[in-house]
Amino acid sequence: MILVKKFGGTSVADLNCILHVAKLIKDDVDKGKSVVAVVSAMAGFTNEMISKITQIPNLSYSQEELSERDVVLSAGEQISCGLLALTLESLGIKAKSWLGWQIPINTDNAYGKARIKDIQIDKLKASFENYSVAIVAGFQGAHSGRITTLGRGGSDTSAVAIAGALGAKICEIYTDVDGIYTADPNVVSKARKLDSISYEEMLEMSSLGAKVLQIRCVELAMKYNIKINILSTFTQSKGTLLLSKEEIVEKNLITGITCDTHEASVTLKKVPFGLLPVFELIAKANINVDMISQNMNSEKNDITFTIQRANVSQTKNLLKENKDKILYDSLSIDESVAKVSIIGVGMLSHSGVAYQMFKALNEKGINILAITTSEIKISVLIPEDYAELAVRALHTAYGLDSSELIS
Amino acid sequence: MILVKKFGGTSVADLNCILHVAKLIKDDVDKGKSVVAVVSAMAGFTNEMISKITQIPNLSYSQEELSERDVVLSAGEQISCGLLALTLESLGIKAKSWLGWQIPINTDNAYGKARIKDIQIDKLKASFENYSVAIVAGFQGAHSGRITTLGRGGSDTSAVAIAGALGAKICEIYTDVDGIYTADPNVVSKARKLDSISYEEMLEMSSLGAKVLQIRCVELAMKYNIKINILSTFTQSKGTLLLSKEEIVEKNLITGITCDTHEASVTLKKVPFGLLPVFELIAKANINVDMISQNMNSEKNDITFTIQRANVSQTKNLLKENKDKILYDSLSIDESVAKVSIIGVGMLSHSGVAYQMFKALNEKGINILAITTSEIKISVLIPEDYAELAVRALHTAYGLDSSELIS
Repeated sequence: MILVKKFGGTSVADLNCILHVAKLIKDDVDKGKSVVAVVSAMAGFTNEMISKITQIPNLSYSQEELSERDVVLSAGEQISCGLLALTLESLGIKAKSWLGWQIPINTDNAYGKARIKDIQIDKLKASFENYSVAIVAGFQGAHSGRITTLGRGGSDTSAVAIAGALGAKICEIYTDVDGIYTADPNVVSKARKLDSISYEEMLEMSSLGAKVLQIRCVELAMKYNIKINILSTFTQSKGTLLLSKEEIVEKNLITGITCDTHEASVTLKKVPFGLLPVFELIAKANINVDMISQNMNSEKNDITFTIQRANVSQTKNLLKENKDKILYDSLSIDESVAKVSIIGVGMLSHSGVAYQMFKALNEKGINILAITTSEIKISVLIPEDYAELAVRALHTAYGLDSSELIS
Repeated sequence: MILVKKFGGTSVADLNCILHVAKLIKDDVDKGKSVVAVVSAMAGFTNEMISKITQIPNLSYSQEELSERDVVLSAGEQISCGLLALTLESLGIKAKSWLGWQIPINTDNAYGKARIKDIQIDKLKASFENYSVAIVAGFQGAHSGRITTLGRGGSDTSAVAIAGALGAKICEIYTDVDGIYTADPNVVSKARKLDSISYEEMLEMSSLGAKVLQIRCVELAMKYNIKINILSTFTQSKGTLLLSKEEIVEKNLITGITCDTHEASVTLKKVPFGLLPVFELIAKANINVDMISQNMNSEKNDITFTIQRANVSQTKNLLKENKDKILYDSLSIDESVAKVSIIGVGMLSHSGVAYQMFKALNEKGINILAITTSEIKISVLIPEDYAELAVRALHTAYGLDSSELIS
């Protein structure tokens, strides 16, 4: 049986951490298992490289430049791969490293955010005749003989894709947290670790700011029906199992509550021609819009939408320059907003979930600026000052509070 | 015309240095030339990686382990390659990076000290249809889909091999010194920079401790008759041209004087069966012997030979353990010796060169412990305390002193 284990940057941060990881792998090998270990770069390395590249002035980030950027960025995983292989060898375990181009992991040519097209797994699989462990460089692939990278958190995606190619039923992802929580434990002291969570819920949680897994990794796991076990490298605790919603035993109405403070709201008053000319403009500038609400006000519309805070000044200029086209009365931008969301597959079969949310927020005197919903999620935009209060109130309202405080 | 330029670690030490290198390359591109730039890792990077690997205990440096070591070590050139490509792009120059496996540069499987077997240059050559500059990662190659490295200083060898594969007549090697000197300027204040030096002389100089070029690089240049121009990245001075002895215009009797203080002398007194059993023992332990002298003394022989100081304790133990086989009277090891050498193709056609050497040393009261000669070199072993005095005396005796002091 081949076991796929993925270790993040903090898990291979230095030689001591790498030795610890090697011993975890050795435990499995000693039990007669073959192990594929997918590794990230040593913590901080990729940021150091990005910082160097950012210091080069006048880059246009053309296709050529993004390709060279990937040549630099992929070096980190190459180093941690080789060091882990050497450390395993030093423990008497036969291990071989595999870079993206060596397997190969074929991707498209979207350098910096490439998507895996296919993995030719035969050579790697055959290596288990001579080696107990195959160490795979995460985050990287190849396109027509050039190195590509998969975007931030891409090593998770590498691991799940390798598990898929091997036909494995489970992929263990070791990280510096010990699982998925009902809410950020730094905000909600009574947050509980979840034993399990569905792919769909995890997708919403990832989109909404829970940083544990890359979204594409979850999509891939869902597509190939691979269970993901999220574990801590440094503690022995049980972790959270990510699986299909049909397999979830313990079904809560609400699984988790997230808070995203990276958005800003843009409000245009009295827009005569409505949404279309506004969003045509925004879309052409490649600015992503998240929440949208439109209030009818006599014949003219008031429009509110949210964008990433990083895009505020670009959006402001764009709207000002085109005032004569859109013909709005006034423009206001608020960067002090937070998007608080409740997520749960239980919503599908229960009514009154939204009402319960609005009631809990109303009781704390929290004003709702915009609302957006999906089948398993409700998000509200509120003033940022109230974000933590809102998350705690909702956590209690949906019965998620743990009886024990997290130490 | 394709120009091959190689830049060492200190030449690409940081982003400022890389920008300077990019501008040197741009000057050539602006003159209509195509450039292959072979780069080393940023100064210090490879040492940092070696230090990490050295901290892993219990490595046996098996073939597998040496292969993984190369995976780690080759990351440095990958990074400097990508950063130089990006910097050139930022200056508006179309540049593309090439790693060892991408060209490919095929080597044997002697990981850590691989030899280049062949270079398939067609793809790289064709890239000049779309790019002005090809940036090649030095120091690395590939064997059966695995990364290999060429040993310390291997980037020089990469550059000359690429020049050979391209049919280039010259290879420019940019470094942190501005050429080859008649002697170490730190020892001899009147040392002169040479305008030219022959391959043969350079080979002797490299073997004898002049650290500028890897020996295999010089051998390769000689084989393909490629001129090497050794230049400083940071000054405009002329440098030293390395070429065949037939092409050297200014022929000095002696070209340079070197001093090597890494050896120790071993003396065995009254060895009844002579050299053979001693050197059989040493050879079986893989210890390199350099100078050898044997003095007849009634029926028994006194033997003196030199080894690297790093091998002293191993050699001492070996000889002590085998005293009953070799039957010597006494063993003495002297670590305070220096090998001083005079090198020059002029020796081939002049007699009395050795006499002149012995006379100059005798005048300073310097005792000669052993002598070894080749066609274009004479080395003497002397007490280490006299090494600098000896180098200066010989520099004057052979008329090498510059009229100007080096600033």
